[in-house]
Amino acid sequence: MPVPTIAWEDNALRLIDQTLLPEQYVRIDCGDVETVAEAIESLRVRGAPAIGVAAAFGVVIGAREALASGSDIVSGTRKAIERLARTRPTAVNLFWALDRMGRRLSEVADRQPAQIRDSLLEEAQEIFEEDRRVCRQIGRNGAGLLNANATVLTHCNAGALATADYGTALAVIYAAVEAGKQVAVFADETRPLLQGSRLTAWELRQSGVDVTVICDSMAASVLRQKNIDSVIVGADRIAANGDVANKIGTYGLAILAREHNVPFYVAAPLSTIDMSLPRGEEIPIEERKPDEITRGMGRQTAPGGVNVYNPAFDVTPSRLVSAIVTEKGVAQSPYQPAFHAWFQGK
Amino acid sequence: MPVPTIAWEDNALRLIDQTLLPEQYVRIDCGDVETVAEAIESLRVRGAPAIGVAAAFGVVIGAREALASGSDIVSGTRKAIERLARTRPTAVNLFWALDRMGRRLSEVADRQPAQIRDSLLEEAQEIFEEDRRVCRQIGRNGAGLLNANATVLTHCNAGALATADYGTALAVIYAAVEAGKQVAVFADETRPLLQGSRLTAWELRQSGVDVTVICDSMAASVLRQKNIDSVIVGADRIAANGDVANKIGTYGLAILAREHNVPFYVAAPLSTIDMSLPRGEEIPIEERKPDEITRGMGRQTAPGGVNVYNPAFDVTPSRLVSAIVTEKGVAQSPYQPAFHAWFQGK
Repeated sequence: MPVPTIAWEDNALRLIDQTLLPEQYVRIDCGDVETVAEAIESLRVRGAPAIGVAAAFGVVIGAREALASGSDIVSGTRKAIERLARTRPTAVNLFWALDRMGRRLSEVADRQPAQIRDSLLEEAQEIFEEDRRVCRQIGRNGAGLLNANATVLTHCNAGALATADYGTALAVIYAAVEAGKQVAVFADETRPLLQGSRLTAWELRQSGVDVTVICDSMAASVLRQKNIDSVIVGADRIAANGDVANKIGTYGLAILAREHNVPFYVAAPLSTIDMSLPRGEEIPIEERKPDEITRGMGRQTAPGGVNVYNPAFDVTPSRLVSAIVTEKGVAQSPYQPAFHAWFQGK
Repeated sequence: MPVPTIAWEDNALRLIDQTLLPEQYVRIDCGDVETVAEAIESLRVRGAPAIGVAAAFGVVIGAREALASGSDIVSGTRKAIERLARTRPTAVNLFWALDRMGRRLSEVADRQPAQIRDSLLEEAQEIFEEDRRVCRQIGRNGAGLLNANATVLTHCNAGALATADYGTALAVIYAAVEAGKQVAVFADETRPLLQGSRLTAWELRQSGVDVTVICDSMAASVLRQKNIDSVIVGADRIAANGDVANKIGTYGLAILAREHNVPFYVAAPLSTIDMSLPRGEEIPIEERKPDEITRGMGRQTAPGGVNVYNPAFDVTPSRLVSAIVTEKGVAQSPYQPAFHAWFQGK
């Protein structure tokens, strides 16, 4: 079983500091809202579902801070929600989890402070447990897309380290392996922050899955030469028409997959789908600091002061997406009616 | 004017150690064949035309070593040619330059040793001077492909640092700028060895050209959003049908360019075209060591012992190449007749 990325232990949020992997395996305790917010901003915890879960516990911590300081728990918790909402703009699960915590807060706002705190903790733990169940269900739903002997190419990390359980894109792989299939994985290293080589390769090896690391620029050659059966990635936000925002490089990879007649699958929880956005063009794309590119791995790798463009995500149009796997099932284009059915049946 | 990558000074081959850029600008003297061979293998000097020029001077150094040690200059020089031919398999200019040195050696083999040495030096200097003229002519021929205001995307480094003068792909840009055009450049950083961010960005800034560094995985987004007018790259070997071997990532970039209706140009000297190979599939592709990917920039960025696939080059089929620019002119598909005309008119 994959390592637990997020845990609520001894009244603290305990996270693997993913910026230190694979060199060091360090777990950090977040005892205040600012530490949680910083952990999200600095990508110590990352992956859309994991960010949602971490933020939910961050709200609990905010309530507890207000309680301890004797200030108003409702307004203190709202401030925590606002702070956590300012961490990362693209992943919709963050806002989904914070909205849900906010609604629970409204429902219990007239109760005793300690009861409010306990209700919020209960809600965060429900979000956490739901994410675990959702990962398992995504895995089961997606495993049927893989043959008995499959070679899969993935990008970034949509695995155990990105969720409360065993991932979304990687859940499909873990579930297929558990069902007795042979799966080999090529992992794009995923510049600039190398979530593929640092995290995906690490967790797949921990789980005994055959993995080969490549540079992102090698994906086209691998698609041409290595008998890739499918590309599977996660998502940070999916628009109502099926356009997918995910880690930068996903859009290009989808084009390359189609060029080589390889199906391109997206696996993500229903909470990633944002029905309020008709198209992907409207998804806000976070731009991050130049030094992730110019000195991302310990060495200065570009001239000082050079211009840098560093978008963290891109949008893959739904026409390039062969199927979207959620805990509700597997949808193919046109996505809008399938999404509506999923949300109505919820 | 760009910095001189290669110089023959004080009877030594003097090279910029490109593995240290952009942090340090260090020139190294190569006084024996093994040092030249190591410099090529370790990419202290790289870029197909520059490798050819460096190898030619390496042959001169081999002749001088034989002369100094009192051994037979002809067999000593042949040994140097053999050693230098074992450095890198893909760039055809290396073999082209070594063949040319070998032919000159055969022509003068019955002369006095000192005369042989001087003839070889003369030949190497001719190769060097020809490369300079060729760069200028490629620049002039290609500059017409750019509009008065152009934004160009490039991959790897096919600039001054890759040649004896101002490059091949970048020659087109330098010549356009000299002709008064406004050119902005997006440079793929070019993993694993970052020739784009370390070298292309460095030399364009030295020359005052507007350059923005991106990760390779951002090229698709840049092509969609940044009004790119053309993609221009160099080549390490071109088959008779116009298939192009170049730095890994070029093939994927060509697919992305076509998807966005952006012309994809290759600029290279005639010596890059290998008429003995009908198709690109037959070009040997060098695979390099895993640690270029797993610890390329000072930090361990993948789990120890993980599988890695690290091809240094890929082959772009000619159907994706809008035009090939050489010192002889600009050719479009079908390439074979154009190449034949160029070689016959030589």
